[in-house]
Amino acid sequence: MEHFQVKSKDKGSSARCGVLTTGRGEVRTPAFMPVGTSGAVKGVTPDRVKETGAEIILANTYHLMLRPGVEAVESIGGVHKLMGWAGPILTDSGGYQIFSLNSLMRISDEGVEFASHIDGTKFFLDAKGATEIQNRLGADIIMCFDECPPYPCERDKLEKAVARTIRWAGECKEAHANTEQLLFGIVQGGIELDLRKHCTEELIKIGFDGYAIGGLSVGEGHENMKGVVGHTIPLLPEERPRYLMGVGMPRDIIAAVAAGIDMFDCVIATRNGRNAYAFTFDGPVRMRNNAHIADPAPIEAGCDCYACTEFGRATIRHFFNIDEMLGPILTSIHNLRFFQRLMTEIRGRIETGEFAEWAKEQLAEKPTCDMGQENNRENGC
Amino acid sequence: MEHFQVKSKDKGSSARCGVLTTGRGEVRTPAFMPVGTSGAVKGVTPDRVKETGAEIILANTYHLMLRPGVEAVESIGGVHKLMGWAGPILTDSGGYQIFSLNSLMRISDEGVEFASHIDGTKFFLDAKGATEIQNRLGADIIMCFDECPPYPCERDKLEKAVARTIRWAGECKEAHANTEQLLFGIVQGGIELDLRKHCTEELIKIGFDGYAIGGLSVGEGHENMKGVVGHTIPLLPEERPRYLMGVGMPRDIIAAVAAGIDMFDCVIATRNGRNAYAFTFDGPVRMRNNAHIADPAPIEAGCDCYACTEFGRATIRHFFNIDEMLGPILTSIHNLRFFQRLMTEIRGRIETGEFAEWAKEQLAEKPTCDMGQENNRENGC
Repeated sequence: MEHFQVKSKDKGSSARCGVLTTGRGEVRTPAFMPVGTSGAVKGVTPDRVKETGAEIILANTYHLMLRPGVEAVESIGGVHKLMGWAGPILTDSGGYQIFSLNSLMRISDEGVEFASHIDGTKFFLDAKGATEIQNRLGADIIMCFDECPPYPCERDKLEKAVARTIRWAGECKEAHANTEQLLFGIVQGGIELDLRKHCTEELIKIGFDGYAIGGLSVGEGHENMKGVVGHTIPLLPEERPRYLMGVGMPRDIIAAVAAGIDMFDCVIATRNGRNAYAFTFDGPVRMRNNAHIADPAPIEAGCDCYACTEFGRATIRHFFNIDEMLGPILTSIHNLRFFQRLMTEIRGRIETGEFAEWAKEQLAEKPTCDMGQENNRENGC
Repeated sequence: MEHFQVKSKDKGSSARCGVLTTGRGEVRTPAFMPVGTSGAVKGVTPDRVKETGAEIILANTYHLMLRPGVEAVESIGGVHKLMGWAGPILTDSGGYQIFSLNSLMRISDEGVEFASHIDGTKFFLDAKGATEIQNRLGADIIMCFDECPPYPCERDKLEKAVARTIRWAGECKEAHANTEQLLFGIVQGGIELDLRKHCTEELIKIGFDGYAIGGLSVGEGHENMKGVVGHTIPLLPEERPRYLMGVGMPRDIIAAVAAGIDMFDCVIATRNGRNAYAFTFDGPVRMRNNAHIADPAPIEAGCDCYACTEFGRATIRHFFNIDEMLGPILTSIHNLRFFQRLMTEIRGRIETGEFAEWAKEQLAEKPTCDMGQENNRENGC
């Protein structure tokens, strides 16, 4: 059986609903994956993450290889045991974090030498190594090792990054030795559409279980992102899942779904939650605001999350005010649930064929979508 | 119906099992009350607190009157709404915190002037005010406003503190205007047994729904504590619950139960949890220890708490190592469950009449009990 099946398509856009099957369960797409960088969705216990409706979570190879180390993870039985999460997990390859977190590094066609952002310890990572590490961590979906250039980036550097990303993708495919794991390729190329096309075509020749669009959500803005996604997706095989890495804000998710993206991950649910920023369908709510001091209303009326069913804004504001962990915890829970409710809404609209119209309204009017976005991909800082 | 019923007594000690009935449910005694100082059992969501077996939790008037303020709490529907806890709550009167947290204060027979430890704002609190505030916060059990002297303390200061505590107890009783709340008196007197006796007798004359022994767990040590508790309890009415404030460590709890104490509260479950110190029946486990790096075993074999059923020591050590909130959260959950398991064990031993012998063994041999104790009562610092 194929590991990905498209179940329904939207009439007025390229949006689609599907089911991604992994060894540890199915994931309904379009899907939002909460980020558990170093093995934890920060501040939220896994049972509660599951309760928000998440069917798959993400962890970062880079962080796990530094702490607690691959051997430690392997010896306790893998990343699922580490995280206390029995469902599907996707691990990032580490490429993005190496490029975004480390100033001390030397890159060549062979791989990357870098110094840990924690203690300066030197490491060398290449495509083979990143794949082996991910084989040992044992996630259900693993990612190719890629070179992720910054934005903006000069053309010749982008070309080199694309060439390396393609070369390394081949090496990853060859090194991949755990048949229980799906391996996804990552398309790079910045906002240069011809480079994106070239990279996509070469990755397809190698052949992967899914295709990710990387190198976005790094400051290029909504329109550039839409341009790259809209250009790349028609080049990708229909029957493979498409994953837009590090995205994102509700408006980006909605626009990307319309273009045909199936999977998303972003730290903003929990990072913004820790910073007292709550997502709602009526736009953001700042939980530290004194206006909430005696407000018994939940963060969002109609939300069925634990935070909203059990606590008023007054309590959550109070918790932030006294530096109590439950402030970040409860707001993170709400935000995680918000993104799952958003995806449920999106899937429902696709199934009923109303997505395109709904998306247009959302992007035009809704305060949920009226928010800027910078780099939201997890770098652990 | 009486609000407290003794259900069974131990044969070889003064230990007893009982049921304390409040407007929001019953509490089996001897009971351990987790501390939610400012409205939160730090880092642990209320549903999880309940899951550990806690039937009553504690909050501090002093902290709540400073933040978010009595009016805010009252306007959202009281302390239960604030905390997201529908079961019984006990509020401390604020006396202890005023004396332990504030250097700027002036005490007289009329009350105490103090400056907030947060921003220096001046407050005046007296017996009437402390009672009115607790009436408005709406806990199920409230405490008299007392003067809690430090340890050691000169005789004449202790005498004055006892005199004020008695005077204020009368004023609290008179001011108490919420008939749904039980009001407990607090016995003071340091380690001077005649003062303890005098205070106890005077409080009984006034008449309270329960009696607390205060001013202990402030550095006097296990033997002094046992001495005061053993001297005071025979003076207290059999049919009223007895509460040893701010206690405590397992050895202190076991010894105090043997002397006839019914209720305990202490921050060590969560405070030590935040500091990576896990309680087990085989003695403490330091969760930051590198020895746990690849250990899939739970904190405590046989423990049924969420942390122990879902995570190995390796993960919890890792979370502390990366400053992830889930380290403190999971260890706090385990510790809260540890204290409830301890109380369940204690109640079971009393019911079967084996408590005295068991307690003797525990106090003589068990590493659980082999730990020093200083000031463990909540002062929020």
